[in-house]
Amino acid sequence: MPNIESVEHAEPCCPPLTERPLTAEEAVRTAAMFKALGDPVRLRLFSLVASHDGGEACVCDISDVGVSQPTVSHHLKKLKETGLLTSERRGTWVYYRVEPSVLAAMGHILGRVGA
Amino acid sequence: MPNIESVEHAEPCCPPLTERPLTAEEAVRTAAMFKALGDPVRLRLFSLVASHDGGEACVCDISDVGVSQPTVSHHLKKLKETGLLTSERRGTWVYYRVEPSVLAAMGHILGRVGA
Repeated sequence: MPNIESVEHAEPCCPPLTERPLTAEEAVRTAAMFKALGDPVRLRLFSLVASHDGGEACVCDISDVGVSQPTVSHHLKKLKETGLLTSERRGTWVYYRVEPSVLAAMGHILGRVGA
Repeated sequence: MPNIESVEHAEPCCPPLTERPLTAEEAVRTAAMFKALGDPVRLRLFSLVASHDGGEACVCDISDVGVSQPTVSHHLKKLKETGLLTSERRGTWVYYRVEPSVLAAMGHILGRVGA
């Protein structure tokens, strides 16, 4: 058994998908993470935040994705709700940052060894 | 730049999400993979196939997921369409098997080094 306890603060649970079938409860929890990245605009926004200088971005940093600023905000909020992003308000703007433990746990579920 | 060519036959493209923003086209392609695992029943079925003896399973091997056999078949077909499963008919049944290169590519996008 891999030590899933080593994945700190991870929202998703569960051993690699190849190890044993997920329970219904585990599947609900984990599917929510995958669903969050299952929308093209949301996935693109996530990659914009994840690859931005300093590892964080606000709506003010995001342009050229072909959707309005309220739509950008909506998607970022969704990503935060599922634990993939964290946020911090500084002055006028809310800055978003990737939660690496959640990405690591998703990688672990997909079969990443030692994540 | 990582050598994404080393991920053989992978449906999803793209470098790790932390490396650079995805293009619109890349995001469409990759979001489809995540979406396929973004449904609890489908994710659970995927884990049943992925963890089954011999690395493959047919609808006849799957029970106790709380959905009908036609629904199971529908979800397995969806997973096949997105490239996450491959299938082979043998006699009465269609056997499904995980496509490891697609899982590896998804892990790579989530930041898995060397996937």
